[in-house]
Amino acid sequence: MDFRMSEEQELLLESLCELIAREVTEADVKTWYENHAVSEKFNKAFIEAGFGFLGIPEEHGGTPADVTTLMLVSEEVVHQTCATIPLLSNILNMYDVVEFGTPEQIKLTMDITKETGSPAFLLAISEPQAGSDNMRMTTTAVHKDGKVILNGSKTWITHGGVAPYALVFAKEDNSDLTNKAISMYLVPSDTPGIKFAPLHKIGQTTTVFAEMYLDNVVCDESCLVGKKGEGFMQLMKNLEVERLLISSFSLGLAQAAMDDAAAYAGQRMQFGKTIGSFQLIQQKLTDMEIKIKNMRNMLYEAAWKADNGISIKLDSALAKRYICMTATEVCYEAMQIFGGLGYTTETRVSRAWQDARGWEFAGGTNEIMVHIAGREIVKKYAK
Amino acid sequence: MDFRMSEEQELLLESLCELIAREVTEADVKTWYENHAVSEKFNKAFIEAGFGFLGIPEEHGGTPADVTTLMLVSEEVVHQTCATIPLLSNILNMYDVVEFGTPEQIKLTMDITKETGSPAFLLAISEPQAGSDNMRMTTTAVHKDGKVILNGSKTWITHGGVAPYALVFAKEDNSDLTNKAISMYLVPSDTPGIKFAPLHKIGQTTTVFAEMYLDNVVCDESCLVGKKGEGFMQLMKNLEVERLLISSFSLGLAQAAMDDAAAYAGQRMQFGKTIGSFQLIQQKLTDMEIKIKNMRNMLYEAAWKADNGISIKLDSALAKRYICMTATEVCYEAMQIFGGLGYTTETRVSRAWQDARGWEFAGGTNEIMVHIAGREIVKKYAK
Amino acid sequence: MDFRMSEEQELLLESLCELIAREVTEADVKTWYENHAVSEKFNKAFIEAGFGFLGIPEEHGGTPADVTTLMLVSEEVVHQTCATIPLLSNILNMYDVVEFGTPEQIKLTMDITKETGSPAFLLAISEPQAGSDNMRMTTTAVHKDGKVILNGSKTWITHGGVAPYALVFAKEDNSDLTNKAISMYLVPSDTPGIKFAPLHKIGQTTTVFAEMYLDNVVCDESCLVGKKGEGFMQLMKNLEVERLLISSFSLGLAQAAMDDAAAYAGQRMQFGKTIGSFQLIQQKLTDMEIKIKNMRNMLYEAAWKADNGISIKLDSALAKRYICMTATEVCYEAMQIFGGLGYTTETRVSRAWQDARGWEFAGGTNEIMVHIAGREIVKKYAK
Amino acid sequence: MDFRMSEEQELLLESLCELIAREVTEADVKTWYENHAVSEKFNKAFIEAGFGFLGIPEEHGGTPADVTTLMLVSEEVVHQTCATIPLLSNILNMYDVVEFGTPEQIKLTMDITKETGSPAFLLAISEPQAGSDNMRMTTTAVHKDGKVILNGSKTWITHGGVAPYALVFAKEDNSDLTNKAISMYLVPSDTPGIKFAPLHKIGQTTTVFAEMYLDNVVCDESCLVGKKGEGFMQLMKNLEVERLLISSFSLGLAQAAMDDAAAYAGQRMQFGKTIGSFQLIQQKLTDMEIKIKNMRNMLYEAAWKADNGISIKLDSALAKRYICMTATEVCYEAMQIFGGLGYTTETRVSRAWQDARGWEFAGGTNEIMVHIAGREIVKKYAK
Repeated sequence: MDFRMSEEQELLLESLCELIAREVTEADVKTWYENHAVSEKFNKAFIEAGFGFLGIPEEHGGTPADVTTLMLVSEEVVHQTCATIPLLSNILNMYDVVEFGTPEQIKLTMDITKETGSPAFLLAISEPQAGSDNMRMTTTAVHKDGKVILNGSKTWITHGGVAPYALVFAKEDNSDLTNKAISMYLVPSDTPGIKFAPLHKIGQTTTVFAEMYLDNVVCDESCLVGKKGEGFMQLMKNLEVERLLISSFSLGLAQAAMDDAAAYAGQRMQFGKTIGSFQLIQQKLTDMEIKIKNMRNMLYEAAWKADNGISIKLDSALAKRYICMTATEVCYEAMQIFGGLGYTTETRVSRAWQDARGWEFAGGTNEIMVHIAGREIVKKYAK
Repeated sequence: MDFRMSEEQELLLESLCELIAREVTEADVKTWYENHAVSEKFNKAFIEAGFGFLGIPEEHGGTPADVTTLMLVSEEVVHQTCATIPLLSNILNMYDVVEFGTPEQIKLTMDITKETGSPAFLLAISEPQAGSDNMRMTTTAVHKDGKVILNGSKTWITHGGVAPYALVFAKEDNSDLTNKAISMYLVPSDTPGIKFAPLHKIGQTTTVFAEMYLDNVVCDESCLVGKKGEGFMQLMKNLEVERLLISSFSLGLAQAAMDDAAAYAGQRMQFGKTIGSFQLIQQKLTDMEIKIKNMRNMLYEAAWKADNGISIKLDSALAKRYICMTATEVCYEAMQIFGGLGYTTETRVSRAWQDARGWEFAGGTNEIMVHIAGREIVKKYAK
Repeated sequence: MDFRMSEEQELLLESLCELIAREVTEADVKTWYENHAVSEKFNKAFIEAGFGFLGIPEEHGGTPADVTTLMLVSEEVVHQTCATIPLLSNILNMYDVVEFGTPEQIKLTMDITKETGSPAFLLAISEPQAGSDNMRMTTTAVHKDGKVILNGSKTWITHGGVAPYALVFAKEDNSDLTNKAISMYLVPSDTPGIKFAPLHKIGQTTTVFAEMYLDNVVCDESCLVGKKGEGFMQLMKNLEVERLLISSFSLGLAQAAMDDAAAYAGQRMQFGKTIGSFQLIQQKLTDMEIKIKNMRNMLYEAAWKADNGISIKLDSALAKRYICMTATEVCYEAMQIFGGLGYTTETRVSRAWQDARGWEFAGGTNEIMVHIAGREIVKKYAK
Repeated sequence: MDFRMSEEQELLLESLCELIAREVTEADVKTWYENHAVSEKFNKAFIEAGFGFLGIPEEHGGTPADVTTLMLVSEEVVHQTCATIPLLSNILNMYDVVEFGTPEQIKLTMDITKETGSPAFLLAISEPQAGSDNMRMTTTAVHKDGKVILNGSKTWITHGGVAPYALVFAKEDNSDLTNKAISMYLVPSDTPGIKFAPLHKIGQTTTVFAEMYLDNVVCDESCLVGKKGEGFMQLMKNLEVERLLISSFSLGLAQAAMDDAAAYAGQRMQFGKTIGSFQLIQQKLTDMEIKIKNMRNMLYEAAWKADNGISIKLDSALAKRYICMTATEVCYEAMQIFGGLGYTTETRVSRAWQDARGWEFAGGTNEIMVHIAGREIVKKYAK
């Protein structure tokens, strides 16, 4: 066994930390949250330094990296900024296009991201009546006169109304419950018939969030990404790694909250002593440190399995559930250590708490993870 | 034993519910949060209906009520609006003036509240270096040439910069740690030398929150409220009831979140069934209902003790700790039942979760309650 | 509202405490656990003092009492002895016979209990393949030549092999899943064809526990208790009160553990101070006191509802779940306060912890309570 | 990073599993618990196979092994037997003698263990008034006429009254609080003046447990182990590894409980389905699996650090706290999955629950771990 990262990984993280130290202040981050967007300046610096396309082949303009390295980078970005960074999620979204798209689609989306520093497209999967239960989606793609006509409504769309393209999941021909032929279409967001209505999240406000309505949206057949009717299986491929990626965000937030709270505990005086010398605070810190250690080991172990060709169906569900729930707990306690100050925007821990809460929903709720893991565990232990 | 409220209490709550149904919509409440203030219209209707001065003698223009009734009303206002209502906290603040102030001070503050519908004064107690540890406050009141000169800085001030008067706690003559002579002075907020700097809370945004700086603030000796040097003991008198009042806010929020989440569980379909028929959701609802029942019994029992002349030093600390921590848990689970929607402002549960979090700090943190209760319990069980 | 017990209840509890102080020492209790039986001496004193048949009409030799009083007595017996007392459970078992049995059956079982001080009969309901799911029981009662022939096997039988009679639940004629005609038969435990095999519990060893095999057990038709085919509905009648009774045992154990641990915390010195002055211990004591207060309020509220003709279907399930789970937690922390000593039989808290664990299974597991309560809550909150 | 064990470790565990499969049945284990001792047959087979002296140099008859391997073996023995195995704790006790003792002392204790299969000596450290606070021990070693005279009393002594030798910790000359000169003496347990009084644990009954009284016990100066006055520092050396070893026991118990409960969930039918298909059971299994994964990673990471010369002061305290507390939780849930059966000795999970509880006290309580870790964390995060 070996619990160390490689020298290459260490160097990479070092250069990442330097980049962030140079490019971002806490005042910048606050501005990002007020503006509902990470600054173009940071996004571009991040992409230029080669972090924006980790795991995407060099031939497409990406930077090869294994899953473990992607997690280390993602965790560290969030740890250093204590923020929600859309470009990180974008890496995984890009995988869908890079793996299944045409060379034109790949080039288009890579180019846009590089030029603008922002995600080229949004992902339109969930529907108001089909949240965890994706097979009930009712958006349809009907083919007529060499065109595709999309109808339906989508929700929980990150970058909704902002990203220039939309990757829409739709059932082929009809919305029957038994119809499992789902395809992905990459269409311009300003195609007639597409409308967005904003949804206001209570955290993670560095991104916008929206509902999307598709009313007889006409696009070319060439908008299809991958094989017709196999969109869901294509999506599934990256879903397990997406769970790890989201977990890495949560871990980064928890670590940032821990940094701040533990340092504060060592400085803040009450009743003539540092509060870090009180048992109640020490117990909080101890259990926070335990949780962060558990989160980190769980994430790295799953990433290591992915990199070694071992199935992470169970591990990614366990990681998503534990890490995202636990991050909120750690941030909660960090606020408590700050006292009333922890309830204000004077501290980063309040923001971390609000952002962490959101990751408990993204990529499958805490409860859906039980649904996935439960069956796997029963199988694993069957005698 | 009898777990029923009296007929009078039932009628009072009925008329309260009618008032709120008539005067407030959820859209109104959202506006309150955006405007950082409850509407004057609601405040005035609330005062006119006789709820604004519960427990204040009729001779001063109040409405006599025991502690239990005050709690029932307070819980129900928050339950119905799912909001943080400054006029409720104001009731207790008024007790300090009504009990210790001069007839002029009482009349002044009552009149302002009735005219404007808003709190007449803010409470300036906590200081940046003296949070839970009030005896370390360093604000001083020095007497010279028949005047009082106040110097120091205060924090966690609700209505800071808004209320026309300030009730300032200051040490007499000097800020020595051993000096326990603290007095209360009621001074106009626009007295030269007073400045406010806003603090941004992450919830409870129906009120403003600020730091306050007092730089050679000169006021008349007649500003003294109560006896010189006994301000802290005067404050203590209401502190235990204040803990119950804050607990009633938390309970109201939790009940509102439960209402919404349980009703949603009975309607929302996933995988072809209402989500309320899934065991994971049923377990959440069961434990939420248990918690709310516990919160309510604990609050009412303490209020009943207060009304029957039994000490609530221990009970109010236990109630504050349990109820305020548990309300956040209930709201957390309510969000989870709503799924991603629970993370948006489309639901009330997200607001309830943010507001409830704040009550864990106000009136003494969860940890300070251990400090108070722990010693009492050891005494109680000594053999 | 009124959180006080009546004067009659206070006097009754006083006389109960005197009885226990006079009749039982901790050494006696230890002997009970080693002998797997409460002493005949205590049982008879308990019955003679009028506590053995609370709630049974005077005409049958009982002592009228409402549900609240039964709970107060039951809680206090367990609190004072820190033990599992079979005669308390027996009170409820007797209700089944008293309410549905013939005068002969009532007299028979009352007389045996009075003479021996021990339960007259055991209850044979659960089966190895039908635990929480009683409708799947396969024990049958076939009627032939004016006799009843019982076949099947039963489990979780308290007093199995000890009580002279058995109250057996069996399906009429056949064991079909759809057959809901279940009857109760009161048969002598030494009827040919009845065999017992002991089951060893890890706590509550003041009673024996067994499996029971019925192999062509022949009894008279007069053994029927109540109406043929309605045994299950008859059982249901008392089930909700049984849940409260079991909850009262758990509460009694928790209070006994609290008494010991809190007193110990006030005396035990470590690092030159009483351990009760350490924050970690104070936090434990605070949360234990909160839990006990919640348990007590929840139990009394449900009992009060039962006495006032209000349905306790939901309340009894919530109470059983919360109180029995929480009692184990309180005992766990009490052990922790004692340190290593808490893991030995030198303390009562170790026994309380083991006994409390058992009540989480009896009368419906923690999980079955979710099953019952969950549906009720969804109905209650439907809009 | 690498989360795999080495091939050598895999082979070692394989041969260990074969040994246990060949030598031990569950019926054997039950007999061990009834007899309060592991069988001589198993002990000798374990020692002969080379597992009894892992980490002790070959020159003394041991088997070289790093900390990680010791943990893997220890965890697996407990996992396979679901039992408390004194020979495992004995390995660490032997380290004290092997590292600090004379060649004669080493040979003596190694020989006894090999011949009898049982620990050669008991460890007498804790005292009734000095539990977590070892510096308050009052047992003294007074030197007179070339002899050592020991006086005092000790408690929590595993093998008390059974092991032929005792390793006694005593203060040199006097019991002053400020006297930090503690030495270790290895004396025959039957030396005149030594008496044992049994203490009855509620679990882990494969060992005996006792108090020890030393009344003018006279021994030779040659009984000294290591340097005079440095006994405590010598003890400290192994304490951190001991915390990991105890954690490995807890992990083994938790894994055994998980094996049984998850397999049972896949087989046991209720309401016409396997209980493993119910969400409430799936959630339990999911969280148990998460916890076991966390325990294992935490243990291995700390062992890996120890093997790589990195301080484990913090890590061993975090591991001891988390793993030992969490093991009890996992066993608790395993019982719950078995329903009533889980409260009987028909299952291993009930035994695991009782044994796991004990490890929360041994080697430093859950609370002492906060005391150790809290300060380290504040230091670690100081800015």
